Amino acid sequence: MSGMNDSFDAARVASILARVAKRRPRIHCLTNTVAQNVTANMLLAFGAVPSMASHPEEVAAVAAGAGAILVNLGTLSPEGERAIPKLLAIARERDIPLVLDPVFVELSPLRLRLAEEVLKQPGVIVRGNAAEMAALDAVMQSAGGVLRVTTGRIDRIEGGERVLSVAHGHEWMARVTGLGCASSALVAACRAVEPDAAIAAAAALTAYGIAGEIAAERAAGPGSFAMHLIDALAGLDEAALRARMGSAA
Amino acid sequence: MSGMNDSFDAARVASILARVAKRRPRIHCLTNTVAQNVTANMLLAFGAVPSMASHPEEVAAVAAGAGAILVNLGTLSPEGERAIPKLLAIARERDIPLVLDPVFVELSPLRLRLAEEVLKQPGVIVRGNAAEMAALDAVMQSAGGVLRVTTGRIDRIEGGERVLSVAHGHEWMARVTGLGCASSALVAACRAVEPDAAIAAAAALTAYGIAGEIAAERAAGPGSFAMHLIDALAGLDEAALRARMGSAA
Amino acid sequence: MSGMNDSFDAARVASILARVAKRRPRIHCLTNTVAQNVTANMLLAFGAVPSMASHPEEVAAVAAGAGAILVNLGTLSPEGERAIPKLLAIARERDIPLVLDPVFVELSPLRLRLAEEVLKQPGVIVRGNAAEMAALDAVMQSAGGVLRVTTGRIDRIEGGERVLSVAHGHEWMARVTGLGCASSALVAACRAVEPDAAIAAAAALTAYGIAGEIAAERAAGPGSFAMHLIDALAGLDEAALRARMGSAA
Repeated sequence: MSGMNDSFDAARVASILARVAKRRPRIHCLTNTVAQNVTANMLLAFGAVPSMASHPEEVAAVAAGAGAILVNLGTLSPEGERAIPKLLAIARERDIPLVLDPVFVELSPLRLRLAEEVLKQPGVIVRGNAAEMAALDAVMQSAGGVLRVTTGRIDRIEGGERVLSVAHGHEWMARVTGLGCASSALVAACRAVEPDAAIAAAAALTAYGIAGEIAAERAAGPGSFAMHLIDALAGLDEAALRARMGSAA
Repeated sequence: MSGMNDSFDAARVASILARVAKRRPRIHCLTNTVAQNVTANMLLAFGAVPSMASHPEEVAAVAAGAGAILVNLGTLSPEGERAIPKLLAIARERDIPLVLDPVFVELSPLRLRLAEEVLKQPGVIVRGNAAEMAALDAVMQSAGGVLRVTTGRIDRIEGGERVLSVAHGHEWMARVTGLGCASSALVAACRAVEPDAAIAAAAALTAYGIAGEIAAERAAGPGSFAMHLIDALAGLDEAALRARMGSAA
Repeated sequence: MSGMNDSFDAARVASILARVAKRRPRIHCLTNTVAQNVTANMLLAFGAVPSMASHPEEVAAVAAGAGAILVNLGTLSPEGERAIPKLLAIARERDIPLVLDPVFVELSPLRLRLAEEVLKQPGVIVRGNAAEMAALDAVMQSAGGVLRVTTGRIDRIEGGERVLSVAHGHEWMARVTGLGCASSALVAACRAVEPDAAIAAAAALTAYGIAGEIAAERAAGPGSFAMHLIDALAGLDEAALRARMGSAA
């Protein structure tokens, strides 16, 4: 983590994680069917509670009590598409923070159109890889107050004047399906308990990246890595954060 | 296990598990997309065969040969909704036992309405957590011959005059997504080979809970726990059941 | 592997796997929601890239750049059904190889009708178990140039005059959900880089079967087997292939 104006250290990350574990915010995820299971398990390992209704007739009722809402555009169905405006309306009405994950938006005009729809909401956090963020660049420019979270070898968090970076993780995180999608849900979980969106995103990605480093030391390949990542995330404490974040924080 | 009028011991559980492994009943699961994979793997570990068609045009044909049908209301789609009356009709026509899992019914008027629809069928087994069962209480009261299976630290099985309880399992079972949903499928698998619904439910939850205890001893966190749970369930034998059920049976 | 007219040995399998790892073909999978996650992880372990859009409005755009397309008929939704003709059209237009996985086709008249639709395309690879292949026999007879891949204890690959067989794998591969579906995706990945469809299928099933043998030596049951299978597939090299394929190749 660098480029921070304010203090961002292991204690701060640990305090956000502790708030998640204590308040157990429900995170409503309209997300792709490939990543649903691992996303739910990462949220549970974090101490949050996942809900994943997508039926247009019930999605607003289920999301109404959530601490944050994630809209992920992967494997979207026509009915999931119809659920999006209902999620946006309830988010607006109840002032629920919104995270957008524009999976493969560079391949699909439909997803680009839906991302534009989501970005009419003010203050959205967008989490994607470099290709996805590039495809959305113009849309994010014209939207108001977007926090851009671009993940990769080094994660970049950009909002207004502030730029943060997180340099944790392991290459296997790109070899297991849904781990990027799950990171967006963890950002949402931290945002549910932390009003500063950039700090929330940085805390989530720092914790996730460090859990990835721990998991990689225990794993023999991407299959066992996924399991150890959940274990490491569930067992993460301030001592482990401090040991890995070092004095660079 | 306590409060049983008739003998319920390791031999009885083992005999039901042996029947599942021998007859390999197919369990048709209309279930949520988050839990489908782990539900299918638990059924396979049990020796049963999962099928999960949900298309309204084929669901009755696929479910027609099943030994039991599970209706789980999580992440229901409009087409899954249209599949429910077709499953109820084939269950009635072929006299196939029916298990209802009312996931998050307390959050969704749509799910409450669909649960009411399912409970018009006589003799349904309902498996849920305390909040879900409370939300369905009135509906179950007015329905005929419901077997209530409330899972938690102590599972309670209530039907007519009889109350059974199962005190096995591990707290990590609530930290992995879909494990509650999977337990409903295992109840369905035991019901497919055992006409006494309360005994079938008690056998499934006893086996599952004991597999959970074994898995917890081998696991380092909820991620590895899920994997060890499948292994433990697949390897469960009468000796392990006897050792854990003790003389309290 | 036997009955080959041309040389099929560890070097040939390794060269196809190396091409997959180098070119990283994207494999577009219209596949069932139970198997999506494990299918994506197997493709990633192989070095390929999965995409899984199913929305009729975007499926052609997303599949257009794929190296191969898989159509799997499990848990098909009405909208997935509407996506099939769009996938067939883009496959024809761009000359993208097509693999069909007719899950449980013997149970569903709808799936039989859709399989017939797919088999109007020339040169389709069909991968199924014995019951599925038997149910499709007449349809495949009248279709042109089908490559039949029947998996089981011994896999059989039949196209025109040529019959190949692969005798690798482990019985646990039938005890984990989605592993058959995933094998179809691996066949598609090899076909994306190898024009000889029979050789592509044999290479995929040989690699997968050998990874299964390695995984079985490390696993304690079907749960841990699934994880070790991904690790073994990701770590497979020519030395391991040569050691297991022996001189029988």
